[in-house]
Amino acid sequence: MVDSDSARLPYFNASPAEVRRLCRAGESGPVTAGMAAGYIQANIVMLPASLADAFHEFCLRNPKPCPLVGMSRPGDYRLSSLGADLDLRTDLPLYRVWRDGNMVAETGDIRDQWRDDLVTFALGCSFSFENALTACDVPMRHLQLGRGVPVYRTNIACTPVGPFAGPVVVSMRPFRSHDAIRAVQISSLIPLAHGAPIQIGFPEEIGIADIDSPDYGDPTEVADDELPVFWACGVTPQAVLAASKPEFAITHAPGAMLVTDMPIEGYEDLVASHRGRII
Amino acid sequence: MVDSDSARLPYFNASPAEVRRLCRAGESGPVTAGMAAGYIQANIVMLPASLADAFHEFCLRNPKPCPLVGMSRPGDYRLSSLGADLDLRTDLPLYRVWRDGNMVAETGDIRDQWRDDLVTFALGCSFSFENALTACDVPMRHLQLGRGVPVYRTNIACTPVGPFAGPVVVSMRPFRSHDAIRAVQISSLIPLAHGAPIQIGFPEEIGIADIDSPDYGDPTEVADDELPVFWACGVTPQAVLAASKPEFAITHAPGAMLVTDMPIEGYEDLVASHRGRII
Repeated sequence: MVDSDSARLPYFNASPAEVRRLCRAGESGPVTAGMAAGYIQANIVMLPASLADAFHEFCLRNPKPCPLVGMSRPGDYRLSSLGADLDLRTDLPLYRVWRDGNMVAETGDIRDQWRDDLVTFALGCSFSFENALTACDVPMRHLQLGRGVPVYRTNIACTPVGPFAGPVVVSMRPFRSHDAIRAVQISSLIPLAHGAPIQIGFPEEIGIADIDSPDYGDPTEVADDELPVFWACGVTPQAVLAASKPEFAITHAPGAMLVTDMPIEGYEDLVASHRGRII
Repeated sequence: MVDSDSARLPYFNASPAEVRRLCRAGESGPVTAGMAAGYIQANIVMLPASLADAFHEFCLRNPKPCPLVGMSRPGDYRLSSLGADLDLRTDLPLYRVWRDGNMVAETGDIRDQWRDDLVTFALGCSFSFENALTACDVPMRHLQLGRGVPVYRTNIACTPVGPFAGPVVVSMRPFRSHDAIRAVQISSLIPLAHGAPIQIGFPEEIGIADIDSPDYGDPTEVADDELPVFWACGVTPQAVLAASKPEFAITHAPGAMLVTDMPIEGYEDLVASHRGRII
């Protein structure tokens, strides 16, 4: 029952290059969840160079929601540190194009939107630690139900930099006690995918009044014998970006991440140590 | 306020040899809590050699409550792997002598009780991870109140071996969410001091009906904004021993541990990484 969680994911053990090839060909489906386990997937933010310094500093000052794993030179649509073959204009399943804070297009190919002043930021994503949890036989309900993870704005403020400010946004996964402990252990080992949770058990302490009404994603029931576990979330930079209304930006569409060649450090040892362990 | 937790412990940074010298001289006080941070403290069980193989196997099969850190040859009251100068007959603050399951003496020196067939087992103790939590500025209420930690029998059975059987016994420390997360992270790094907790938040799942009525130690309030966190406890082998009624045994008295020269692996990195960190 638990083993099937990875077995029914056709690209769980695919290489990142294979996943990117599927994305480029429009054959990946819209969401990269459950693909290329062991590698960092990334939220993508592309901004005009005039805003890049401030956004870079914002990421460095808010490493839990915005773990920076890559940054391009202006106008460069390669990011070879994250994949030798990588083309940032085609290798995500779906992009969103923004003008003055409004989404103006959703597309699988941004070659015709490209600008020579765009700087691309790649920020680690929870899909990477979800894959690690799946590999370690820690099941997650939203994945089993085929839903989006519930995501909430909190009362925790990001450290603001220039035009970029806003609340830390978190994702929530419910676990019974033993899996909550294992989820802390495993996610702590992957700081580039948001690391350890920031709250367990008391949503009201971080300003979440109604756990059944997420601000993004789908609701997920928390059973009486479960603890809600909250992680800083890559929706944070998207919400910050929407609020700051830059004249132009391109991001990934929700769930349509960049699958990078960057391995999760120590991934094989992590899975070997934690797979099937009771605690 | 948090920093003072270690500052007001006079032997927190003492060497294990210095603590043992105090114990030997009868000058340590009855409890080794808060002493020699960074080193493994140990529960002690001394049994006739005829029972040693079964008890050894019991420890190996129950490593969470009984993490084996040392074992002597029959009749040998040295355990040089745990301290070059170590004399197992004098270097604990207080011992208990048992006949047929009944305590017949409590004494600071067992030289006149020594037998040439005694095998000594040293099993890691929660005082070591408590010291690590204190060093990382994770406060514990029972220590702040100067009380014993609350300890409970659970409905989890140890894997039985020969005459040795019984429930896993656990200790409980209440934490607010962020310290609960840090306590999981830190204690996971010290498997020889019981490692990660075995339960968070749901005492009834492990057979604890009334958290205010511990089976050993002192009650500790769990506030409404706190999670009770439970670790396997070194009282487990003592309870198992009492139930199996060996014809002769010597143990440490509660809280009067053997302070060993065995360092906690990676302790300095652990404290450097976790001290003062929010998560």
